[in-house]
Amino acid sequence: VSAVVTRTFKLTIAYDGTAYAGWQVQPGRPTIQGLLEDAIEQLVGQPIRVVGSGRTDAGVHALGQVASCQLSRWNASAGELAKAINTKIPDTIVVTDSVEAPDGFHAIRDAVAKRYRYQIQIGGRRDAFDYRYHWHVRYPICLQRMERAAQRIVGRHDFASFQATGSKRKTTTRNVTECRWIRSSDGPGGTIPNDRELVALEIEADGFLYNMVRSIVGTLVEIGRGKYPDHRIDQLLAGNDRTMAGPTAPAKGLFLKNVTYCPA
Amino acid sequence: VSAVVTRTFKLTIAYDGTAYAGWQVQPGRPTIQGLLEDAIEQLVGQPIRVVGSGRTDAGVHALGQVASCQLSRWNASAGELAKAINTKIPDTIVVTDSVEAPDGFHAIRDAVAKRYRYQIQIGGRRDAFDYRYHWHVRYPICLQRMERAAQRIVGRHDFASFQATGSKRKTTTRNVTECRWIRSSDGPGGTIPNDRELVALEIEADGFLYNMVRSIVGTLVEIGRGKYPDHRIDQLLAGNDRTMAGPTAPAKGLFLKNVTYCPA
Repeated sequence: VSAVVTRTFKLTIAYDGTAYAGWQVQPGRPTIQGLLEDAIEQLVGQPIRVVGSGRTDAGVHALGQVASCQLSRWNASAGELAKAINTKIPDTIVVTDSVEAPDGFHAIRDAVAKRYRYQIQIGGRRDAFDYRYHWHVRYPICLQRMERAAQRIVGRHDFASFQATGSKRKTTTRNVTECRWIRSSDGPGGTIPNDRELVALEIEADGFLYNMVRSIVGTLVEIGRGKYPDHRIDQLLAGNDRTMAGPTAPAKGLFLKNVTYCPA
Repeated sequence: VSAVVTRTFKLTIAYDGTAYAGWQVQPGRPTIQGLLEDAIEQLVGQPIRVVGSGRTDAGVHALGQVASCQLSRWNASAGELAKAINTKIPDTIVVTDSVEAPDGFHAIRDAVAKRYRYQIQIGGRRDAFDYRYHWHVRYPICLQRMERAAQRIVGRHDFASFQATGSKRKTTTRNVTECRWIRSSDGPGGTIPNDRELVALEIEADGFLYNMVRSIVGTLVEIGRGKYPDHRIDQLLAGNDRTMAGPTAPAKGLFLKNVTYCPA
């Protein structure tokens, strides 16, 4: 009789979500969770579950998604696990870090904060390289107005107006600790003359409702173009009225940047 | 009886070559030339030929490829032509500029210089976003040695050693006016910690032999890693011996950056 020792691993994962039907396993469609589970199953010879810190939708990217998994048949180091997985997944998905976590570590339950980044190209032409990673807004928007409005998002608020209709969460109050616009960086197309501006919203909170970032971005852009007044944000935070929010910004500009966990 | 007025257009085109079988039309395979010709044919209602400044191979990108075409059925401006074409081609191909050129302008014959850029990632992990646009070199290379060796390329030389075997050009002498390594820029993955270096070779000449840039890059990298001595470049330029050159660097790091034409 031999005791089976189960080890818990915490994986950090970057992916270009363009070609995927999102994080979560769906029968017959390529998903990041599905490809990771298939890769690990090949390595350990048994079906396993990879638990992500949260789902990302079809077309959404990640710079630092975090996932946990429990393995009883992996005898090498956590670093070797990452290397082995990377040989079995497409180039558009990369395990960037892997550590052994305390027993019982759970990527969803133990997350204490998340940070997203949302990239926008304002004006200019379509870019053959950057189009995958930016929402291309073709009308003029005032960055100063968007910056002022973003500050109103910071704090503990009821974000019910900023979630997709039909969501059912116990509480819709979240604490947003950062929400600000910064300059975004160019890809290879950055050397082609193009009269455009690249900006990104960096937003951190203790948690996010479904579609919350994309709904906030859509609303900030409507404010930036002058369709809504600045105080629309306060009305939305007070009013719980999804119909007053802007349209949901497209998936392709959104990146899950990182997930924070309490030190064990 | 009405006279048919033919107008010549000079198009500048950027493309992500990842998914294409190169510039040149090939039956049954997606090519940049083929997609542009199909788009223009839809607009003017007759088959037309788009002449590129040169072919780019499968997987090679362009920031500023130039092409010419002659149209007898386009009555709007050159700028409107670019906009109309852009609505009929995939997001990975963009006409970035369009001007009306003098009668008889020909994108191959009239080119007086070309500039390429070749991007390398040295060390670090695979990047889920930048992998499309960099050759990932996993062994250490000395940038200083590559820089010194690159300077030896500059000048009027016989580049026969740096062309693909089997090429037949009348003359293999070319005048390289610039050849230097610079820092390359990050894509969205640039915000993930990654112990790597991004560099790019910028090279300009009055013309290039087939595979010349990729062969030069392959040789410079062999020098940078210490497999060849610095003066290997001089031997190659003097010796006309393809077997002494380094391996041909992969297509995905290569960008046709721009093409220069004499002022009319």
